[in-house]
Amino acid sequence: MEDPARSYFNCTDSERATFEAGIKLGSVYHQFVGTPLSEENVDLTEKSIEEGVRVQPFVEDVSVRIDRSHLRAKRSPYRYVSLTGNMLNVKLTVRYGLSTAVCELSYLEELKYPLMRVVEVRGQS
Amino acid sequence: MEDPARSYFNCTDSERATFEAGIKLGSVYHQFVGTPLSEENVDLTEKSIEEGVRVQPFVEDVSVRIDRSHLRAKRSPYRYVSLTGNMLNVKLTVRYGLSTAVCELSYLEELKYPLMRVVEVRGQS
Amino acid sequence: MEDPARSYFNCTDSERATFEAGIKLGSVYHQFVGTPLSEENVDLTEKSIEEGVRVQPFVEDVSVRIDRSHLRAKRSPYRYVSLTGNMLNVKLTVRYGLSTAVCELSYLEELKYPLMRVVEVRGQS
Amino acid sequence: MEDPARSYFNCTDSERATFEAGIKLGSVYHQFVGTPLSEENVDLTEKSIEEGVRVQPFVEDVSVRIDRSHLRAKRSPYRYVSLTGNMLNVKLTVRYGLSTAVCELSYLEELKYPLMRVVEVRGQS
Repeated sequence: MEDPARSYFNCTDSERATFEAGIKLGSVYHQFVGTPLSEENVDLTEKSIEEGVRVQPFVEDVSVRIDRSHLRAKRSPYRYVSLTGNMLNVKLTVRYGLSTAVCELSYLEELKYPLMRVVEVRGQS
Repeated sequence: MEDPARSYFNCTDSERATFEAGIKLGSVYHQFVGTPLSEENVDLTEKSIEEGVRVQPFVEDVSVRIDRSHLRAKRSPYRYVSLTGNMLNVKLTVRYGLSTAVCELSYLEELKYPLMRVVEVRGQS
Repeated sequence: MEDPARSYFNCTDSERATFEAGIKLGSVYHQFVGTPLSEENVDLTEKSIEEGVRVQPFVEDVSVRIDRSHLRAKRSPYRYVSLTGNMLNVKLTVRYGLSTAVCELSYLEELKYPLMRVVEVRGQS
Repeated sequence: MEDPARSYFNCTDSERATFEAGIKLGSVYHQFVGTPLSEENVDLTEKSIEEGVRVQPFVEDVSVRIDRSHLRAKRSPYRYVSLTGNMLNVKLTVRYGLSTAVCELSYLEELKYPLMRVVEVRGQS
């Protein structure tokens, strides 16, 4: 898709691709952390987050997985949890011009941190 | 459903029902305002917000409608919008003990404000 | 303060007071959970959440405390955390007409749950 | 500051700098849009958003300005607004290794869109 905002940017295609990927990963995290979650709505929540990413510019592919190990069937009124960043795994591919950035959000045990990272940049820098 | 937290409260069933309804309406607004939205994901977003309410305590029924008049088909990379409170219509029924609170969030032209209100309380006060 | 929306409600003053309190507690939780937090900005974040509650209707008093036991001085780029509901303690007083609702959000070890509760309702029901 | 997560990335310093900048701009938008706002708390909200950015990795400088033209003194209980993306102006400088990315979020009348953009990349690509 052509970019009507191109003239507002001053960077290479690959820098733009990683910039756009960063925006999407930051937005997933800060928009959806806190969402009420149980076994009943986890599938739908994953799909809804994916679609919320897909409507944003230059997204080629995205998949969202929520770690179900913290979820519980709703046997008490309080048996649900809030989505946290540590439960999120997001794989995201952004293409801008000739460059493609493959990025990921996943919890890193070593850093005790939900790291957003650039897995690979393809195409002209 | 029995309430394992009942002893922590000091109010009537009807006060509790409206309290619980207020929590759910406040959470819909502040969790989901900002969500990226286009004609492609608006149906799924409505359903996902509904299910996020339904997993919370004492919810009997909920329906979420997003005003589509601001949405656009995605013909440019930037042709999507962020969900605002003014676009939201939520109808919510909460039951606690013997009381039922019917509540609503909708934009009120007269006040220029997305008002959360108690439409009706049924059952013993 | 007079309520220009009064005619849209159909409930007692005390039911309205707990409804308004529920909205505020739900909004604190779902607006601010996810906020980046370290020892450097925790004081300011507490104050900012308080002021965000205070501008809303019928709030008489509010205090917000964030549990500092999870915070760390920022010695590595990744030494900060995201605010979770379990770290929040909010005390809130809402007055509507002749009724006052004293409410609280705090983590309840017994339920493993950040409970929003009505501590006391004063004034005509 | 040294980066303990460096080995998880596979990109240049300038691609990393714009990636990190994108994350911060996405997080400001999706964390704080919806915040209740009036003339009473707008200064504090700006400062609190800035500090929430500053605790994140590799931020060299940040300034946040909220457009006050939509704000109102609180003469009625409902005289406050919710922060929208269109009211936000954020200037952000991120440094990673030898590269510095200067970025901005501002509403673009031409696109009717709150655009996040890369103003300049300095240092080795």
